[in-house]
Amino acid sequence: MSNYPQPLLRLISLLKKFPGVGQRTAERFAFALLDWKETDLSTLSALLGTLKQEITSCPECGALTAEAHCPFCDLAKRDRSKLCIVASAKEIYAIEETRSYRGLYHVLGHLLSPLEGRFAHGLNLDKLKKRIKSLEVSEVIIAIDSTIEGDATSLFLKEELDKEGIFSSRLAFGLPMGSSLDYVDGGTLARAFAGRR
Amino acid sequence: MSNYPQPLLRLISLLKKFPGVGQRTAERFAFALLDWKETDLSTLSALLGTLKQEITSCPECGALTAEAHCPFCDLAKRDRSKLCIVASAKEIYAIEETRSYRGLYHVLGHLLSPLEGRFAHGLNLDKLKKRIKSLEVSEVIIAIDSTIEGDATSLFLKEELDKEGIFSSRLAFGLPMGSSLDYVDGGTLARAFAGRR
Repeated sequence: MSNYPQPLLRLISLLKKFPGVGQRTAERFAFALLDWKETDLSTLSALLGTLKQEITSCPECGALTAEAHCPFCDLAKRDRSKLCIVASAKEIYAIEETRSYRGLYHVLGHLLSPLEGRFAHGLNLDKLKKRIKSLEVSEVIIAIDSTIEGDATSLFLKEELDKEGIFSSRLAFGLPMGSSLDYVDGGTLARAFAGRR
Repeated sequence: MSNYPQPLLRLISLLKKFPGVGQRTAERFAFALLDWKETDLSTLSALLGTLKQEITSCPECGALTAEAHCPFCDLAKRDRSKLCIVASAKEIYAIEETRSYRGLYHVLGHLLSPLEGRFAHGLNLDKLKKRIKSLEVSEVIIAIDSTIEGDATSLFLKEELDKEGIFSSRLAFGLPMGSSLDYVDGGTLARAFAGRR
């Protein structure tokens, strides 16, 4: 509402930038912030002020890191024979949580999407190929969502890696654990049939 | 997930303090913040750092204000014969938006709730009564939610004001505009019957 004090209006317009937050939710957040303790507000303010300096991307793999050494590039602790390609740094944490993969990572940064102006040259494939060769990786695992952009990017990566004679695989698609056949969509069921083993 | 860099973990734990935001949404917000432009991040950081200094409560009516003079206490522009009692400063803006009320306000700050340790002495009724007398208010409008705490507080206020010989009314309860009788709950329908005119 336009009657709010100016600083509150500016706060609301910024909070609306959060994903899935509209005018009403942003107003609710802003009024909640007014009720926060002074210490919490200043902690959040300080964190936001230094966020981009404190959390950087590893120049090697692209994962988020707050330390001098990237924890996912530590060759002493990781299995250097495997390299997993993900679209964004966030996905690394979901994969780590499974505790079933101890190899290296490579963050693409974005997927192929010509309509949004994201083309193959932006994927920086040369760097990826150099990494694969210098690390002597024996298997590349493509862990990319099954969306139109994801499928296109995965196919493109597979072809590019095949040209270099690098073996690559993609995550299996099929029924989620504990799901019922009745409730699974047709696309997933078709891929589960095609991928039966 | 516990693998996140330390500053990100701290950011997520703070974002979880927003109303209705759990672990997953806080993670989504934190990763969205990492993608924000540096200028937006520093603007938000600066706003949060000075929020409590920039937005204060009017010492007279309790409304939020970012200026030296509270816009809702300006006797030249407001109708001083009416005073509207609300539970929190946020509700003033909803009432102003209707453009059907031009009187003064009084923010209670909280409702009576003995279980949460909020008793009558915290409502600061002496100050309210003094304001009503010095402003020569002829009607007090109680604009408080119809919840258990809201009803108890409204009844208490009415009794206290009656003792002083001050006329008070409460907002009408009934069918919302454009609603269908089929979908209105029993409590609302009963109040709509009781309040028919």
